[in-house]
Amino acid sequence: MTAFADSTGAAVDADGIDAEAALEHKERVGSVGEADAAAALGADYDCLVEATPTTLGDAHPGFEHVEAALERDRHVVLANKGPVAERYDDVMALADAGAGEVRFEATVGGAIPVIATIEGMDPSHVTAARGVLNGTANFVLSRMAAEGLGYEHVLAEAQDLGVAEADPTFDVDGTDAALKCAILANVLHGGGYSLDDVDVQGIRDVPSSALELAAEDGRTVRLIGEVTADGDVRVGPRLVTEHDTLAVTGTQNIVQLETTNAGRLNISGRGAGGPETASAVLADVGRLPER
Amino acid sequence: MTAFADSTGAAVDADGIDAEAALEHKERVGSVGEADAAAALGADYDCLVEATPTTLGDAHPGFEHVEAALERDRHVVLANKGPVAERYDDVMALADAGAGEVRFEATVGGAIPVIATIEGMDPSHVTAARGVLNGTANFVLSRMAAEGLGYEHVLAEAQDLGVAEADPTFDVDGTDAALKCAILANVLHGGGYSLDDVDVQGIRDVPSSALELAAEDGRTVRLIGEVTADGDVRVGPRLVTEHDTLAVTGTQNIVQLETTNAGRLNISGRGAGGPETASAVLADVGRLPER
Repeated sequence: MTAFADSTGAAVDADGIDAEAALEHKERVGSVGEADAAAALGADYDCLVEATPTTLGDAHPGFEHVEAALERDRHVVLANKGPVAERYDDVMALADAGAGEVRFEATVGGAIPVIATIEGMDPSHVTAARGVLNGTANFVLSRMAAEGLGYEHVLAEAQDLGVAEADPTFDVDGTDAALKCAILANVLHGGGYSLDDVDVQGIRDVPSSALELAAEDGRTVRLIGEVTADGDVRVGPRLVTEHDTLAVTGTQNIVQLETTNAGRLNISGRGAGGPETASAVLADVGRLPER
Repeated sequence: MTAFADSTGAAVDADGIDAEAALEHKERVGSVGEADAAAALGADYDCLVEATPTTLGDAHPGFEHVEAALERDRHVVLANKGPVAERYDDVMALADAGAGEVRFEATVGGAIPVIATIEGMDPSHVTAARGVLNGTANFVLSRMAAEGLGYEHVLAEAQDLGVAEADPTFDVDGTDAALKCAILANVLHGGGYSLDDVDVQGIRDVPSSALELAAEDGRTVRLIGEVTADGDVRVGPRLVTEHDTLAVTGTQNIVQLETTNAGRLNISGRGAGGPETASAVLADVGRLPER
């Protein structure tokens, strides 16, 4: 690691940065180093890991970070969904124009290797994808069903447990799952999708009575995101049978891929978390060609 | 495709073989072409796809085919389990000595990308693996549990359906699953394992009364293969809860990977079949570096 930035500062050293020391500096001073955060972008590196928070629309400033790296023929690994959900075509045009590659396994399904699996099968052999892509919403729905509790109660509990953020809007309104679906649609169809193309419905309005009715029928409700065989992209609460493969519990994520030659593939695991995201980022770094 | 061999003949043409024509030739004459089967090994090619039947011990003749290709600095993609289950260290020594790479996704879990997923996480970050790796045994156990029928009855039914072979020994005695576990152990531990290192028990002796007793307790029996964190490898019938992720039904396969940074990953899908195997082989071909 030759450069390491947070929102207020950066450590830059072409001879390598000691991660422990940088983190200790952040603990003590509030930033990972004394340099200007922007200085990290000009550093000497082979691969930029872009992990600033996801933003919508122009995906600023993540997009500009990606742009700066690709224009210098550097590789980019994204943990930030914005650039590939909202500006996929722009990102790929920049990558095509230079020698750098862009990878983004960490943006969909946390540690689950969804993108690599699609890539391995060849996107043209994957006809549809669906799954549970937001752990917070899934935690809320599974707790509501298991305990017969209302949405507001379970959400507050999830916030206490650190499973839901103080502002859970992105998760419970389906925006986070929709961004992931836009990314999957871009991978399956070679681009063309952004959040605007996703039909999104969240879980705020799912009453506990609906979960009770579903349970009487051996079913439950999950927030399912999908890219259909027709290329439609949607996210919303759906009825699934109680022991369906899609009915993962807690903060688990699952992705189902429909393939032309290998039937249905299911991949499930932890969809979020620091180590999980780091694991996906490092897997992507390992897949990059030598510069 | 520049060469294409079956057990009795081969088609060899450096300008490319028409697959349809070769298959039609096989239908009509009994072999894919007029050339000697051995001639295919001397052909001009970049990658050898070794798909002869799995044999134990010295893995003959698959091993020699792999050896011939690697000694010519050609890549090898295996659908045949023998060379990587029984002679992994020999195969890797040959690969290390030359410019060819060896891949073998199709040997474990059919279309499920198990090997690629382990590779992506880095084998050193995968501490254990377990799963249902034989569709025939799983079909028999799930039918026995669902219908309350005996082993012999369900096996005969599976043979009628083409799910079990006329000689199902490899499947029901656990040998096939054990070979797959030896391959997984080799990948996780960098070699050193063969069938002899696997503690194997099959499903022949599972009485339907055991499945009934298990069901009364909300459980069922599956033939589970595992590579433990201690490096032990074993295959045998195990009790699992009825709706456990491992309790896949019919001919499905599932693999669970325990990882240091990403918790547990589950991958399930079709574990066998022609198109599924071909899909895994082609995915491997796509992962090879240019020669």
